[in-house]
Amino acid sequence: MSAAPTPGTLYLVPTPLDHGCPLQAPLTDALPQGTIEVAARLSHWISENARSTRAFLKRVAALVPLAQPLQAQHIQQLPHAIHKQGDHRRAGTWDARPLLAPALQGHDLGLVSEAGMPAVADPGSSVVRAAHDLGIEVRPLVGPVSMLLALAASGLNGQSFAFVGYLPQEASRRATRLRELEAWAQQSGQSQLFIETPYRNAALLQALLQQLRPDTRLAVCSGLTLAQQRCTSLRVADWRRRSAALTADLSAQPAVFAIGP
Amino acid sequence: MSAAPTPGTLYLVPTPLDHGCPLQAPLTDALPQGTIEVAARLSHWISENARSTRAFLKRVAALVPLAQPLQAQHIQQLPHAIHKQGDHRRAGTWDARPLLAPALQGHDLGLVSEAGMPAVADPGSSVVRAAHDLGIEVRPLVGPVSMLLALAASGLNGQSFAFVGYLPQEASRRATRLRELEAWAQQSGQSQLFIETPYRNAALLQALLQQLRPDTRLAVCSGLTLAQQRCTSLRVADWRRRSAALTADLSAQPAVFAIGP
Repeated sequence: MSAAPTPGTLYLVPTPLDHGCPLQAPLTDALPQGTIEVAARLSHWISENARSTRAFLKRVAALVPLAQPLQAQHIQQLPHAIHKQGDHRRAGTWDARPLLAPALQGHDLGLVSEAGMPAVADPGSSVVRAAHDLGIEVRPLVGPVSMLLALAASGLNGQSFAFVGYLPQEASRRATRLRELEAWAQQSGQSQLFIETPYRNAALLQALLQQLRPDTRLAVCSGLTLAQQRCTSLRVADWRRRSAALTADLSAQPAVFAIGP
Repeated sequence: MSAAPTPGTLYLVPTPLDHGCPLQAPLTDALPQGTIEVAARLSHWISENARSTRAFLKRVAALVPLAQPLQAQHIQQLPHAIHKQGDHRRAGTWDARPLLAPALQGHDLGLVSEAGMPAVADPGSSVVRAAHDLGIEVRPLVGPVSMLLALAASGLNGQSFAFVGYLPQEASRRATRLRELEAWAQQSGQSQLFIETPYRNAALLQALLQQLRPDTRLAVCSGLTLAQQRCTSLRVADWRRRSAALTADLSAQPAVFAIGP
């Protein structure tokens, strides 16, 4: 009877924020050498999207030789429903444990999303929970997290803040939600951060400028970590005076929105 | 009459999380080469603590030559009251604009805290707000942010989360606050993160295990980005069964606590 192997570690591997952007920044602007070296050493992956994981590994390989060639990498993709609805709404209906079988067999495993930190504003947290439940060690690696870069650059309160994901799309529900977030931010001092699908950014900005109080501070950060990065943080009254020029900047890039007193 | 110079940029420069730790990790585990290069190029700083900024610049200099020698670096320290009370409670009583004079004279400026991302769970946001008000460009750089690493590693909901800083120290007020945070986390699904002064970690963990519901998930991550990093994420009922061993691990290291359904 052979003993069970020592389980591998689940590494949370962040990726650059330039996924899908026409101009990519150097990988060494977004990831520490230590993160790049771990990524080069791994050969088993749990991925939001296998194709983007292969593209990421090609960028890694240009800097550090991969321990296993690209064709020999084992990449398991998260089920599609998890992408669409978020891990937590699917809790109880999906068992992430089978994806962790390579770790139980002794292999180190990498969890990756398409851009940024896996399991933060991205799928993957059900995999991390399953790892804890199976006694697999979890090690997060350093890399870019768009909403934290945006929070720091906003000048809003960074000692109490919340990220609330997407707002409702329907106009009157969105307006209600916005007023609720603004009231809570003004009352508690807690900054409120949210995101939108890029092609709806301009519409969201218009809604914000219509709905919010003139003295609320609104920050919009786009192109984070890229050359075209831009963070604007003004009182709503000042945004209203300058919004045409500022909206043009937003175009259809991924952006993070933040409001606070 | 000479024209005003083009203002410099305010870079938000993250630093490693091993400040004050007996064993330091390589700088290249915590910071991308791009961040290290910007830090080496700057010679004007706004700092939480000038001494730790000099120690940081020595570590940078070991990798990339500094544009200006250490003795020629201009380091302005944030006023002490800002450290203690947080920028936002001091709003209106302190004007950060004079610190930004070098940027208005055309110099790029770096904002740094003792560990992690400036202006996130750390002083500095009033400087960032003042930069926006003066029309100075703000560029956040990639580096470690302890509570985001902890959130990813917790397996808790990363699509809606809040960081609430420190809990009250007094036992009954802390218990009330904890039950309020737990009720909100359970009702809304929003993960709640908080921190404690390291030597009080064990006391906080005991309070959490006494106060929280058995089915609440509690994650505690310490030593983030270091070799001795440890993230434990279990239901409170499971923590109770194993807490003696797990508390010993915590010792007096900086830690991040997170709860959620």
